[in-house]
Amino acid sequence: QMNTCSKAQNTDKMTKNSANLRVRLPALIFALEVMIIVLYAVFVTYDDHTNALLQTNMTKPMENAVYQDYPFFADIQMMIFIGFGCLLSFFQRYGFGGMVFNFLTATFAIQWAILIQGFFHFYYDGKIHLGVINLINAEFACAVVLISFGAVLGKTSPVQLLVSLFEILFEYLKINDAGGSILIHVFACYFGLGVTFILYRPSLNDGHSKECTSYQSDMLSVLGTLFLWVFWPSFNCALTLRGDDQHRAILHTFIGLSASTLTAFALSAMLNKNGKLSMADVQNVTLAGGVTVGASVDMMITPAAAYALGMLGCTACMLGYKYLSPFLARRLRVQDQCGIHNLHGLTGLISTVAAICELQELIPGLKAGLGRTAKEQALYQLAALGSTIALAAVGGMLTGLLLKLPYLASPSDEFCFDDELFFNVPADYNQAPVAQDLGPFHLQDASSKGCFPSF
Amino acid sequence: QMNTCSKAQNTDKMTKNSANLRVRLPALIFALEVMIIVLYAVFVTYDDHTNALLQTNMTKPMENAVYQDYPFFADIQMMIFIGFGCLLSFFQRYGFGGMVFNFLTATFAIQWAILIQGFFHFYYDGKIHLGVINLINAEFACAVVLISFGAVLGKTSPVQLLVSLFEILFEYLKINDAGGSILIHVFACYFGLGVTFILYRPSLNDGHSKECTSYQSDMLSVLGTLFLWVFWPSFNCALTLRGDDQHRAILHTFIGLSASTLTAFALSAMLNKNGKLSMADVQNVTLAGGVTVGASVDMMITPAAAYALGMLGCTACMLGYKYLSPFLARRLRVQDQCGIHNLHGLTGLISTVAAICELQELIPGLKAGLGRTAKEQALYQLAALGSTIALAAVGGMLTGLLLKLPYLASPSDEFCFDDELFFNVPADYNQAPVAQDLGPFHLQDASSKGCFPSF
Amino acid sequence: QMNTCSKAQNTDKMTKNSANLRVRLPALIFALEVMIIVLYAVFVTYDDHTNALLQTNMTKPMENAVYQDYPFFADIQMMIFIGFGCLLSFFQRYGFGGMVFNFLTATFAIQWAILIQGFFHFYYDGKIHLGVINLINAEFACAVVLISFGAVLGKTSPVQLLVSLFEILFEYLKINDAGGSILIHVFACYFGLGVTFILYRPSLNDGHSKECTSYQSDMLSVLGTLFLWVFWPSFNCALTLRGDDQHRAILHTFIGLSASTLTAFALSAMLNKNGKLSMADVQNVTLAGGVTVGASVDMMITPAAAYALGMLGCTACMLGYKYLSPFLARRLRVQDQCGIHNLHGLTGLISTVAAICELQELIPGLKAGLGRTAKEQALYQLAALGSTIALAAVGGMLTGLLLKLPYLASPSDEFCFDDELFFNVPADYNQAPVAQDLGPFHLQDASSKGCFPSF
Repeated sequence: QMNTCSKAQNTDKMTKNSANLRVRLPALIFALEVMIIVLYAVFVTYDDHTNALLQTNMTKPMENAVYQDYPFFADIQMMIFIGFGCLLSFFQRYGFGGMVFNFLTATFAIQWAILIQGFFHFYYDGKIHLGVINLINAEFACAVVLISFGAVLGKTSPVQLLVSLFEILFEYLKINDAGGSILIHVFACYFGLGVTFILYRPSLNDGHSKECTSYQSDMLSVLGTLFLWVFWPSFNCALTLRGDDQHRAILHTFIGLSASTLTAFALSAMLNKNGKLSMADVQNVTLAGGVTVGASVDMMITPAAAYALGMLGCTACMLGYKYLSPFLARRLRVQDQCGIHNLHGLTGLISTVAAICELQELIPGLKAGLGRTAKEQALYQLAALGSTIALAAVGGMLTGLLLKLPYLASPSDEFCFDDELFFNVPADYNQAPVAQDLGPFHLQDASSKGCFPSF
Repeated sequence: QMNTCSKAQNTDKMTKNSANLRVRLPALIFALEVMIIVLYAVFVTYDDHTNALLQTNMTKPMENAVYQDYPFFADIQMMIFIGFGCLLSFFQRYGFGGMVFNFLTATFAIQWAILIQGFFHFYYDGKIHLGVINLINAEFACAVVLISFGAVLGKTSPVQLLVSLFEILFEYLKINDAGGSILIHVFACYFGLGVTFILYRPSLNDGHSKECTSYQSDMLSVLGTLFLWVFWPSFNCALTLRGDDQHRAILHTFIGLSASTLTAFALSAMLNKNGKLSMADVQNVTLAGGVTVGASVDMMITPAAAYALGMLGCTACMLGYKYLSPFLARRLRVQDQCGIHNLHGLTGLISTVAAICELQELIPGLKAGLGRTAKEQALYQLAALGSTIALAAVGGMLTGLLLKLPYLASPSDEFCFDDELFFNVPADYNQAPVAQDLGPFHLQDASSKGCFPSF
Repeated sequence: QMNTCSKAQNTDKMTKNSANLRVRLPALIFALEVMIIVLYAVFVTYDDHTNALLQTNMTKPMENAVYQDYPFFADIQMMIFIGFGCLLSFFQRYGFGGMVFNFLTATFAIQWAILIQGFFHFYYDGKIHLGVINLINAEFACAVVLISFGAVLGKTSPVQLLVSLFEILFEYLKINDAGGSILIHVFACYFGLGVTFILYRPSLNDGHSKECTSYQSDMLSVLGTLFLWVFWPSFNCALTLRGDDQHRAILHTFIGLSASTLTAFALSAMLNKNGKLSMADVQNVTLAGGVTVGASVDMMITPAAAYALGMLGCTACMLGYKYLSPFLARRLRVQDQCGIHNLHGLTGLISTVAAICELQELIPGLKAGLGRTAKEQALYQLAALGSTIALAAVGGMLTGLLLKLPYLASPSDEFCFDDELFFNVPADYNQAPVAQDLGPFHLQDASSKGCFPSF
């Protein structure tokens, strides 16, 4: 591997790199925190369900909105911090980075989204009014950020993550006004692809020695998948109408996920030369159904339709992982590290188009609030979808350019996917075996998510 | 271990073995999915709480059944996918198989149970009516399947698991009609024992080199135990009557589990030659109380009785692990891989008998709905218990015979407990140390669950 | 490291040590269980929400208290058994001890607290009346025990843990009468420091070869942090008034934790020579905000104040880890293994003082129930705080003396932080690499929690 001489050089390079973090990261975080706390002090107050002064003798404590909102909020917290955190720790030597940068990013994304969404949606009498419902909305914005970041996992510094966060949130929340939560996955995906297009690293197309999993990291990652799988119904129903709408949302999500799970196992064995299952498929593609039912999750689409959407989205996602992602990287300079285009882009597109069709079917004589015919409404929604993709991609590319600024501590190619760059690592870090025979092993090892060496 | 020559032979054998999976698994899964989606399309519709057309102006959204059902449903999902998934990953090299085949099996079991139970219990006006309550019932049927499979963990292929699933569910749901959820553990146990009796592998009685745990797998497994422990009250109360019944069920389950936990630690140190604690005991025997209170969990049995049941069930379970399981394997050709007879059979029997006695005690002048005296009712229930065991065992044996068919990709003895048979494994898979000195170590290592070499 | 000769001696020493566990642990546990079950049989019965005989035709099942209490109870169970269990498994070779002794201790603490609190707070008509609300109260007492034990992690036997448990609970519940749940953290911290002061081990001041983390143990530990982080709002609100009080408690806890998380990352990079992040900081200091908002969590303190408390508590906690803990160990003979003084002591003090100030501010003309002025009330509360600390410290030292009794199987210095003393360990236990170059590495490795070798 490395002789003592180059190891010393390595340590020097590393130290110079992370020395930036010693000033830049605290400086950035403290600046942001000062901004947040000032905005909180000036603008943020309690809403009707959190303000003690607005409770009267007539108020029934158990009818406080918190009892309806908090359970879903907590479920989605588990998805964000635990599910996503574990899922992203699949790299053999980027477990700390995966789980812990997710922790930092998500925390900050939610804080910032509370403020932005506060100004756009919860602002009256000169104040942002805060309750758990704001937190749920902020979680959705946070999900956009985390999905986008999947495209560049292992290739950025925490400074870059925090800087890009603003741009993502602001763009998303401008667009979200008209689209509702349908566009979360689509927006997040194409924004992330825009970023990674600009941050293209040619040398990574031949693979990277640390771009592989270990037995334990694969286990932890699939555990993350299971957390996301179990609580996805909460995510899909949290912002739908209470009552039968939320009940249908839960049902459809469960059915869609079940269908995509079974289909994922089938396709994984089928598309693998030696008929073996790939852990990367189990970690990612099983979740496709949750995204694909998303846009029509509260409609009366029938349980069979939810099942069909699960199977369809899963198939598109799997084919994307096997064929489209390598093509995007090789030909279009889009290195999609976690394959977000398969799990959120393709499935999100199918989901949105399906919802438009279903809406046509379910309500034939539909006249939208603005007096459109059904056909016009469909065209309007397709246009909204198209402009969302365009704006997301452009926003992503602009953010990518921003991230190329020299002071943001971007890791060099050599130090991607490497915890040692930003963390103190334990004694056994360097003793973990790294893939020795990179040539043949690397090409055949489909158990490494995103490990497409001959990009 | 193996020289290059036999490693090549090994890889050949393995490839031939799993090549079966490349056609058989997708073929089976797609066939099943087509069947499911057709049945869904023809027969499955929304129930009163999920059908938008049945909601009126008078309907109060927050009184929708989903708000009572979904929390328990989600808790049990965590037990099934996360708790059980982690618990079953105790083998050093069968972590992928344990956690991921549990994922596949559970998903399919719930889907199939929704249909079968739908036809038996939720069918009217020519349709199965679906809501989250159906999902909860399906989770219980799924638990039967997963418990049964514990008897053969590491010794089957996913094709075998899916094939046997039908039989288990159909049998269970025929029997369950009269027994309620009391018989879950008993049925699952003896069905599983029936299967493993037929699938007896003589060479495994001397132990298997991969039939041991690693430090990380033991940690992940006990984490699974903790998930099951924390949410078992939800499992035991989900199908009891709302109100004080559910409250008692939660209370008794917690007390019973606490008692069995303390007792398990005591017995583990006591029954171990060197006075050390065994992780296998902590992973399994601590849970015994949850099963043992199960049959009387909503009755007015007094908290002290719940405590006593916990201690009793734990003791039976521990003695079973130490003495009965080796005997069953050595003399009766029943290789109970996870010791389900101890955790679900013995405890389930104690639970059922205790419930019968308690019912006698609590309601002396009991006249059952069919006009029986108390004594007759007790005899009737004992008869139901006996016939359940018999039917389960026979059903299990028939399923075992079915699983011996040649096209189901059954692993040879050599490839049991080995992820490499069905999964692409990461680079560090073969570098994990395997027990070298199998003789003395193996006999004394009680930390390996089910590691009873001299069967 | 060790030659065969001393390894044999080691095994002898170890065997003699744990042989004590074979008799002592079961004897102690069985004695305690007999005591518990007798007390249950004589004194414990159902409360109004669990007693079937007290339900009438007018009773609405869904208004049973269990539906308000159980969700918070289950969330806190997840924190206690899973969150804390994972967090405490950061030592490379004390994972079993960390997670499993936490399991044993917590189970027994809750059982014992149910009885003690039962006699103090739920006793009428000659009986302790039991429902899930009792369990929630018991969880809080359990938290006191677990926090205290953090000071001596890896340095005690399970026998010592169970013996000291009584003392802690009894002391705490005597004091808690007047203080509410504000004093949990403060009491637990100074009790634990009292214990560790008496159990001072001079040789540990130069560090211990096993007092370090591994890559996997650091991952599992931060996963525990995430569980605690996600559910801390449930912990802080479970015993506050229903309605807007609980809603504010959830909001403030979330805000406080978010603030301390961001601040922790900033300070971790800033205070580290090489600007790298330390996993120990991410595992512990991110949680400081949850403690610091605790005492005023249901008051109308404004969201900005919650944010400020989070930042403040985090800063105190981090400075404590970096500078105060080494000083306490080096100069005051207080070896605080997990740094509980930073995460619970300093933050708890800030929290309590802040609450006193806020109460002054919020209610200027306050006349406490006993006719005091606002100033008098503040002085009274400060006196209560001071006496709590004094009583806790003294109680802790007395307990420490008790733990020095010869029959409690205390590990020798050599066998601290070592699972092999009390557990059967898997084959790969001794192959895990231990820090080789202890001198320079040890001093710089801030990723090991509590690893302050030059105490």
